[in-house]
Amino acid sequence: MAEPVDPAQPPHPADVADLVVEGCTVLAHDPDGTIRFLEDHTVVVRDGAVADVTPAARASDLPARERIDARGQLAMPGLINCHTHTPMTALRGIAEDMPVEEWFNDWIWPIESNLTEEVVELGALLACAEMIRGGVTAFADHYFAMDRVADAVVRSGLRAALGWTYFSGQGSEGRERSLDFALRRAGDADGRITTMLAPHAPYTVEDADLAATAELAREHGLPVHIHAAENRAQTDGSLERHGRTPVETLHRTGLLDVDLLVAHGTGLVGSDFEVLGRATGRIGFATAPKGHLKFGWDTTPIRALRSLGIPVGLATDGAASNNTLDVWESMTLTALVQKSAEKDPRWLTARQALDHATVQSAQVTGLGERAGALTPGRRADLILVDLTGPHVRPLHDVAAALVFSARSADVLTTIVDGRVLMRDRRLLTLDVDAVATELAQRLPKLTDRAHGRRIQDYDVGR
Amino acid sequence: MAEPVDPAQPPHPADVADLVVEGCTVLAHDPDGTIRFLEDHTVVVRDGAVADVTPAARASDLPARERIDARGQLAMPGLINCHTHTPMTALRGIAEDMPVEEWFNDWIWPIESNLTEEVVELGALLACAEMIRGGVTAFADHYFAMDRVADAVVRSGLRAALGWTYFSGQGSEGRERSLDFALRRAGDADGRITTMLAPHAPYTVEDADLAATAELAREHGLPVHIHAAENRAQTDGSLERHGRTPVETLHRTGLLDVDLLVAHGTGLVGSDFEVLGRATGRIGFATAPKGHLKFGWDTTPIRALRSLGIPVGLATDGAASNNTLDVWESMTLTALVQKSAEKDPRWLTARQALDHATVQSAQVTGLGERAGALTPGRRADLILVDLTGPHVRPLHDVAAALVFSARSADVLTTIVDGRVLMRDRRLLTLDVDAVATELAQRLPKLTDRAHGRRIQDYDVGR
Repeated sequence: MAEPVDPAQPPHPADVADLVVEGCTVLAHDPDGTIRFLEDHTVVVRDGAVADVTPAARASDLPARERIDARGQLAMPGLINCHTHTPMTALRGIAEDMPVEEWFNDWIWPIESNLTEEVVELGALLACAEMIRGGVTAFADHYFAMDRVADAVVRSGLRAALGWTYFSGQGSEGRERSLDFALRRAGDADGRITTMLAPHAPYTVEDADLAATAELAREHGLPVHIHAAENRAQTDGSLERHGRTPVETLHRTGLLDVDLLVAHGTGLVGSDFEVLGRATGRIGFATAPKGHLKFGWDTTPIRALRSLGIPVGLATDGAASNNTLDVWESMTLTALVQKSAEKDPRWLTARQALDHATVQSAQVTGLGERAGALTPGRRADLILVDLTGPHVRPLHDVAAALVFSARSADVLTTIVDGRVLMRDRRLLTLDVDAVATELAQRLPKLTDRAHGRRIQDYDVGR
Repeated sequence: MAEPVDPAQPPHPADVADLVVEGCTVLAHDPDGTIRFLEDHTVVVRDGAVADVTPAARASDLPARERIDARGQLAMPGLINCHTHTPMTALRGIAEDMPVEEWFNDWIWPIESNLTEEVVELGALLACAEMIRGGVTAFADHYFAMDRVADAVVRSGLRAALGWTYFSGQGSEGRERSLDFALRRAGDADGRITTMLAPHAPYTVEDADLAATAELAREHGLPVHIHAAENRAQTDGSLERHGRTPVETLHRTGLLDVDLLVAHGTGLVGSDFEVLGRATGRIGFATAPKGHLKFGWDTTPIRALRSLGIPVGLATDGAASNNTLDVWESMTLTALVQKSAEKDPRWLTARQALDHATVQSAQVTGLGERAGALTPGRRADLILVDLTGPHVRPLHDVAAALVFSARSADVLTTIVDGRVLMRDRRLLTLDVDAVATELAQRLPKLTDRAHGRRIQDYDVGR
């Protein structure tokens, strides 16, 4: 904690904070991870990092280049979208109310054969705007033409863990491009970009390619981001076709021995948990409950994963299936859906949901030491949430108010690396109308499916 | 449709509209109920009713006392909260992450023995503020001290169907008070208040009282609003204790032969559908999916009810269990949860969800001829929704955008009976800070459970 400022002494320049966020309730993590709410506190930011969290009265005279009066607001770590495809925002609402095989084969993969780099960047920019307005400060993205997504990250001010998707159908070129990108753009955007290798899924990438990916990950110290056991049909199809589950394939190809981010996992079965329990890499899952409900899938088995100590982060998947990139909604839905799936209202409490949204999401995306808590030394990725709306009052329980009453539209201010990207709901780095208008001009060409091509087939063997 | 105005003629006073909402997309219902989106249309309001829905160009010269430029917005019927307990907003977040029996017996019913009329009215006013901001124009309420809720309706400008709750434990006095209120306040608030009889539930009201209620309903032409088959444990308990399901009790006591609004129904079993199919009254259900998930219950079996032609309206229950009175959230969750429960992504499409939110919710609350559609002659209960946010763009599918991307915070303007209650998110009839501050002063006394009393016991026989 900071020493009180002596008013008799003019402040040394080093004492001038870059930003102070004053008089708010702070969602703080004790060293053991317990969440506490500190009333009337101030967050002090220097050099893009949290310098101090202190009672407001102690920091009222602290000189600062920028001050935010945050009374009536709550400061918490920015949300992290642990699995998305930002450019697919261009396809929001294009293919609704249908099973995943029809969604992929008749709509998404034919349309994606029309992708241009411009559409990728415009979709990513629109996604960044949506996420900043929803209190998201970092995201893990898995898509194509990722240099353009990286450019959108630079422009938006967000933090991101980026991976260039590949299928075995592309030959070794796909894997090489994923590696090249991961090596080339890591550390970009003043360090806000980290990178991952991004094989699509065990049903579209062959074992030899997965094994080669694990080898590259070890060699270059890169994490891997993959879809696996997305739903039960994939697991059943894998068992019929290969005699093993998708998770057993991850194990057999060495991917459970590197840092691995697995999207979805709603198709995990009993034997998978033993396999996961023997993993030597840092494994994490990303759950996207809205899309799981919408496709009629089961949900990510968080209780079983927790018993193995495997963190589960919150995600939205892409807007083409999930319709929003609203991680706040994912937080609320995760609590609701887990209670329902376990038929246990005591499970996945509001505080557990906040742990998934903060510490666990940071772990899953490789940001465990740099984000996920407003602790001195971590990057100043934080959001300010309005607690004065009629839908959160009275405030008997702050954790419950955040998870079950508040929503993404209550995020007033979004800050990444100490830089304010949205203030009082006004975006400061992106122009939504300009981006959406430019994107709209490209939509007729993008969504034309008359050519009959598709970039891949969804066929999980059943 | 209105005749075009002849600019050469000064308008006859009768031609001056009270309000025109100009240049928006209108969610319109064809006579067969099909939803269509009319672009660049204008809604004309006279004497509190929809007078016309017409292409914007035809109404641009129409004289009006008030004009709203609604370009970039969508006009749709106001949402209807088909089952809530507005005063329980005072208890938002008081008892979290626990089963319903603990929630009732250890928290809600002990606290409700401290209720005062002032708390009821303040809770109802806060609830009205939340609902207006969420695009709700009417609600069905089931609670105590309902004169104070009626007063809140008068003050807020909302429409409501109100019923005074009673238990058999109160003797005949409870039923008589419910009837007295229903007769006394019907038509109040310039006709915006309608009333219902409100026995609590088959597990708290004895058969003789239910039968007497059905008799009163017939005699006075009043609908009845009741909780029944809220969850499967209640149905199983009723079978063990009485040898019949809660729905069979409704049938046996004559309640299926009057107009009946049933809350929840997540515990319906196969034999109930035959019984419901033989009902001679207008039966409707209200589904509150968030609370169902939170308690770990099943969900309302909408598909089976639909096959019987029984409408299902959207609801939030009270904020003490549901945390919000956000009917938009109920709409989104209904679509998601129904797809999941039926394991069928083609079921409960966005358009079906909009039908539940509009026409079916109006039917269930007895407003079927007066609200639920922007059709000339119906009351002008409408809301304007912002379609320009980054989370709804691009706009490939308006129905999907409303159900799966937009949220209650996108409602800019709320209009009831042609009167603007919120404009550009600013409440015009209620002061949230004043109400919440006054309520906060009464909370310590309200939430004191040291007296050891409770107003009722939750014991469903298992």
